[in-house]
Amino acid sequence: AAERDHIGLKRLIEDLHAADVADLLEQLGHDMREAVVQVLGADLDPEVLSELDDDVRDDVLAAMDPEHLARAARELDADDVVYLIEDLDEDQQQNVLEALEPVDRTAVQQALNYPEYTAGRMMRRDFVAAPPHWTVGQMIDHMRAHDDLPDAFHDVVLVDPALKPVGLAPLSRIMGSGRDRVLRDLQRDQMEIIDATEPQADVAYGFNQYHMASAPVVDEAGRLVGVILMEDAMEALDEEAEEDLKRLSGVGDESLSDKVWEITKLRFPWLAVNLGTAILASMVISQFDATIAQIVALAVLMPIVASMGGNAATQTLAVAVRALATRDLTAANMRRLVTRETVVGFTNGVIFAVMVAVVEVIWYGDYKLAAVIGVAMVINMVAAGLAGILIPIALDRAGADPALASGTFVTTVTDVVGFFSFLGLAGMVLL
Amino acid sequence: AAERDHIGLKRLIEDLHAADVADLLEQLGHDMREAVVQVLGADLDPEVLSELDDDVRDDVLAAMDPEHLARAARELDADDVVYLIEDLDEDQQQNVLEALEPVDRTAVQQALNYPEYTAGRMMRRDFVAAPPHWTVGQMIDHMRAHDDLPDAFHDVVLVDPALKPVGLAPLSRIMGSGRDRVLRDLQRDQMEIIDATEPQADVAYGFNQYHMASAPVVDEAGRLVGVILMEDAMEALDEEAEEDLKRLSGVGDESLSDKVWEITKLRFPWLAVNLGTAILASMVISQFDATIAQIVALAVLMPIVASMGGNAATQTLAVAVRALATRDLTAANMRRLVTRETVVGFTNGVIFAVMVAVVEVIWYGDYKLAAVIGVAMVINMVAAGLAGILIPIALDRAGADPALASGTFVTTVTDVVGFFSFLGLAGMVLL
Repeated sequence: AAERDHIGLKRLIEDLHAADVADLLEQLGHDMREAVVQVLGADLDPEVLSELDDDVRDDVLAAMDPEHLARAARELDADDVVYLIEDLDEDQQQNVLEALEPVDRTAVQQALNYPEYTAGRMMRRDFVAAPPHWTVGQMIDHMRAHDDLPDAFHDVVLVDPALKPVGLAPLSRIMGSGRDRVLRDLQRDQMEIIDATEPQADVAYGFNQYHMASAPVVDEAGRLVGVILMEDAMEALDEEAEEDLKRLSGVGDESLSDKVWEITKLRFPWLAVNLGTAILASMVISQFDATIAQIVALAVLMPIVASMGGNAATQTLAVAVRALATRDLTAANMRRLVTRETVVGFTNGVIFAVMVAVVEVIWYGDYKLAAVIGVAMVINMVAAGLAGILIPIALDRAGADPALASGTFVTTVTDVVGFFSFLGLAGMVLL
Repeated sequence: AAERDHIGLKRLIEDLHAADVADLLEQLGHDMREAVVQVLGADLDPEVLSELDDDVRDDVLAAMDPEHLARAARELDADDVVYLIEDLDEDQQQNVLEALEPVDRTAVQQALNYPEYTAGRMMRRDFVAAPPHWTVGQMIDHMRAHDDLPDAFHDVVLVDPALKPVGLAPLSRIMGSGRDRVLRDLQRDQMEIIDATEPQADVAYGFNQYHMASAPVVDEAGRLVGVILMEDAMEALDEEAEEDLKRLSGVGDESLSDKVWEITKLRFPWLAVNLGTAILASMVISQFDATIAQIVALAVLMPIVASMGGNAATQTLAVAVRALATRDLTAANMRRLVTRETVVGFTNGVIFAVMVAVVEVIWYGDYKLAAVIGVAMVINMVAAGLAGILIPIALDRAGADPALASGTFVTTVTDVVGFFSFLGLAGMVLL
């Protein structure tokens, strides 16, 4: 039966792209995944491993026969091996490293020395470099003589004798030029040299901003150590977008395959912070409990003011966090944008003040209370605009991720300001 | 003075990448931008225009001398001209089109026939195609004979006599192979053929999933009409990520350069929806006003239950929206994920029930009220988990964007369930 399962499974996945097989494995539960990996055995395409999400990857590695794992590592490029083993414990890492050819082993070990989420981890170590004085003919002959060219590359890196990158010659131009042309004359107008310790978020931004096909990566001495391709940068850009979206919603680094207990742990911190800020808001309300005891309508209406403020603040926050991520919110336009958000908050505040006042009059028929809720609405919407843009800017200036925790801080402001202005004004005007 | 301004400005920007000049223009206020564009005149690099955000682009076009605009259009590739003029009114479009060479004009007009945000709009119309039986030598000679090769391309598209794409031959393999090799034998294992009407979100997903360098685009008849490069897909991926982030926060298609009144209008709809749902929550509270009148502590504590539910729901929502965008939440794992979110909601609910009950006892010393808020917390956290995942799934199944409006719907559920369970239980237990 195991043999039949093996053949059936193999047939099922053999026409699929490695990325799709990885997606299938990610969708399975833990036990099922383990069973599939074991039934497939040596027929699991090594490329699938480098396409897996990191926690599923560790799950799959644990289920693999060590011998199959070692063989898979030998078939993969150094950058994929790095991804494969970066989270394994020392012993298991050692086992995989020993299975590699010495030159690959050194490459993997060097990459592991760079921190996670940096260019040094992302870069490919198989690239094509040449002196700028080579001709197209020399370059083509050189490439034809080597049958171990990288799977993918878009540019030849031009390097000086000290191995410093001095230019990028795109394959399309090399191919379209006569054999006598010198590579130096074909190079791109622009080349971004990336430091191996540069964060992947910056790398992704650069590629997207300048539409680069590839960029050379250098060590501290400025020597070429690797190349990052646009496909790698695209993956990083996608990861960074995911991180922003999740952080803005108070979700950490969780994945769909995480188990209940892991998810619970990962979501706990921001819920705990939110409990603290919710208690703070409650303490504001409790200052006015005597007022509420006399006018219960205040308890009924107060969530409207807080909720509208929270919503308006979330809108501003999303715009500000995105603008900071894309380097579009800078010192040059900060003042203009803060002013704009304040004015937008005020304008929407007035509009919704009128609407909510009308609702109040229909509901309770109390004109004074209508005025109170209207004024509180304007105050809270202005506070929402200010908090929504100033808090992420402050986090960014403090060197923190503006998406992280912004949401909680911002709604704390709108809850506190909303309850305080509404109940405080009510106490002054109505009693 | 105008002459001096002109020289100064020109010098300031001449070493900058077009994308950075575009960013600078985006950061300026409307009047300043207009002035800069007019002072620069014909020295504004046409590439800058294709790097601008769409509303700034229209602003800049309006400030440009029609003659300069026509000249800029002639220098740009057809896909960039399409972007340039897509939002101009008929007359202005016609002016620019008339300035183009007939072949470019036809290309631009054809592209404009495809809907916005589809492959037909994204694709480049300058590509290199060849029959699969050509040899490397023929290909290289052909390319050397043409000096109007596209700026950027990574693959030669192999086409049959009916112009249907049958394969992609990467430049790196062509260059590394002997002159006698046949292109067919060098082609990539995989090629995704994209329909010209395919949405850009799907195109971006495909490129990122399969790490493609380029993909051929075909018309209804299956004939090659263009090529999309990874650089174009990366831009689309970034746009889609921005859209998800903004929609999840109730922000429409606004940009940093929009003016107060535009922003106010764009943010109004979701705030109005939120007002409706906030009033709904208030109506739930008003059902219990007699209970609140007797126990004011309920008014003080009720926002805690609602706020914790809202936060937990937002966490689940972010994970679900992202998983739907990356095609990782499917029919295959939906049941497992819904169960997981329910259990996580219950577990965190119990944890925070205990914490909030302790706070209540310290604060008010009422054990019964502590039990009530604890139970309400568990109920609302489970509701949060369910709403957070089921609402985006339902929107997705209904063909709507799961990010759109999810936030408002989800917090409506947690507000209503939170207030109802807390106040309802309090009425039953405490009175």
